[in-house]
Amino acid sequence: MKTISENRAFDGTQGVYSHTSKACDCDMTFGLFLPREARDGPVPVMWFLAGLTCTHENAMVKAGAQQWAAEHGIALVFPDTSPRGEGVADDAAYDLGQGAGFYVNATQAPWAPHYRMWDYVATELPALLADEFPIDPDRQSISGHSMGGHGALTLAMAHPGRYRAVSAFAPICHPTAGDWGRKQLAAYLGPDESGWAPHDATLAMRATGFDGPMLIDTGTADQFIDLLMPEALAEAIAARRQQAVMRLQPGYDHSYFFISSFMEEHVAFHAEALYE
Amino acid sequence: MKTISENRAFDGTQGVYSHTSKACDCDMTFGLFLPREARDGPVPVMWFLAGLTCTHENAMVKAGAQQWAAEHGIALVFPDTSPRGEGVADDAAYDLGQGAGFYVNATQAPWAPHYRMWDYVATELPALLADEFPIDPDRQSISGHSMGGHGALTLAMAHPGRYRAVSAFAPICHPTAGDWGRKQLAAYLGPDESGWAPHDATLAMRATGFDGPMLIDTGTADQFIDLLMPEALAEAIAARRQQAVMRLQPGYDHSYFFISSFMEEHVAFHAEALYE
Repeated sequence: MKTISENRAFDGTQGVYSHTSKACDCDMTFGLFLPREARDGPVPVMWFLAGLTCTHENAMVKAGAQQWAAEHGIALVFPDTSPRGEGVADDAAYDLGQGAGFYVNATQAPWAPHYRMWDYVATELPALLADEFPIDPDRQSISGHSMGGHGALTLAMAHPGRYRAVSAFAPICHPTAGDWGRKQLAAYLGPDESGWAPHDATLAMRATGFDGPMLIDTGTADQFIDLLMPEALAEAIAARRQQAVMRLQPGYDHSYFFISSFMEEHVAFHAEALYE
Repeated sequence: MKTISENRAFDGTQGVYSHTSKACDCDMTFGLFLPREARDGPVPVMWFLAGLTCTHENAMVKAGAQQWAAEHGIALVFPDTSPRGEGVADDAAYDLGQGAGFYVNATQAPWAPHYRMWDYVATELPALLADEFPIDPDRQSISGHSMGGHGALTLAMAHPGRYRAVSAFAPICHPTAGDWGRKQLAAYLGPDESGWAPHDATLAMRATGFDGPMLIDTGTADQFIDLLMPEALAEAIAARRQQAVMRLQPGYDHSYFFISSFMEEHVAFHAEALYE
């Protein structure tokens, strides 16, 4: 593991690190904020998965999460959104290939050799963090934006007992039914749609739900809301009687201005679950 | 109008009054909490509509709303849930007739002469309050529980500009599709279902939505949740991109213990809209 940078932030440290990933078979970069409390021992950790076109950096510099994580004494992890590098397959479109890993393990050519973001986020990176940093693996929670909200919701539901809470900003709620999803799931996982179901938050909610609290914010002026389909997940959450808070925030759009406006409440929501 | 009782409460006054209602053609009783600020001039008002079997008294004595209304300087109105008296039609079932007015204007025998709770709550009682008490008719909001949540949601959507906010505890969300609704709407309004639509929050949301903020709480352990159908309204709210907060509260049931647990947040939500 290599340290790219470390900056003092809110009396803690905002670091950026790279390492050779076995899951993705390439070098991967991630951001990690450690609060002051990490100097004294392991702290709980909140994952934040970013959306299409993002790297580890977008949420790290634009979401305004560190101030609230510092207040609650929790770490923040900002993974990249795909494998990267010269030997890694890509596509000219913004929504496929590098920057658009969709948090799945690809099985199809040319993606299968590197595009294993599901294993990377669920298995490899958590183990690295527990080995290298004062992170308490028994107190994890997860959040994300757009494609990253999709990743957070699907990972949380697929790993009972792992994440104490899940939240999402403008998540892609029903990718098997929309243009933000069908294209990518077909490319990465192939045409057999039976394998897509764990990667659709609405279908996962119908199948199992989540064993903890859930918070979802979507802006009513989100320019991509027809692709996000919050109505499908809202129906599934209520039908399952899933503990949840679903909010439609008036006038907010899909940007990081929306995310940062509600980050304080999301971090407080995670902190309550991480410290209970 | 006759004063039944007045008690000092939270530095304001909890009153109970009766009057002869033209809408219902019988004497009607209601509770009204006036905060201390009402001594100095008109105050905003939050309506609270109660559920099946309730009178004006249940929410007044069990919901714990006065302490928060006092804190925010707003009045609370607790109407009865139906016309009452010896000459008023009734039914042996708990969910039809007296105590079960469903906030509609009945058109069918034997209900039509008295069961006009829609007009009573929307027109007659607001006019009486504005005439007799220091209530500001330009700052009203509405809430309710179960059948009263149904009433609050449908009245709010049918009167654009009237209510600055609407909230509900465990509302009956889709009465045209369930056993808490079809029986009563058929009895009061007759078999032509086209007239039922304004009295179904899910259908009203699909048709028009609400021109303000909305807050809805339902307990995941609500013993009547299959009759409430929160999933239908959740889907409709998200599909309309309606400004809203929908919460499924873990372990809470249908009782006033549930209501009182979240009343502080509901009154604060109303106060924000009433004072903006």
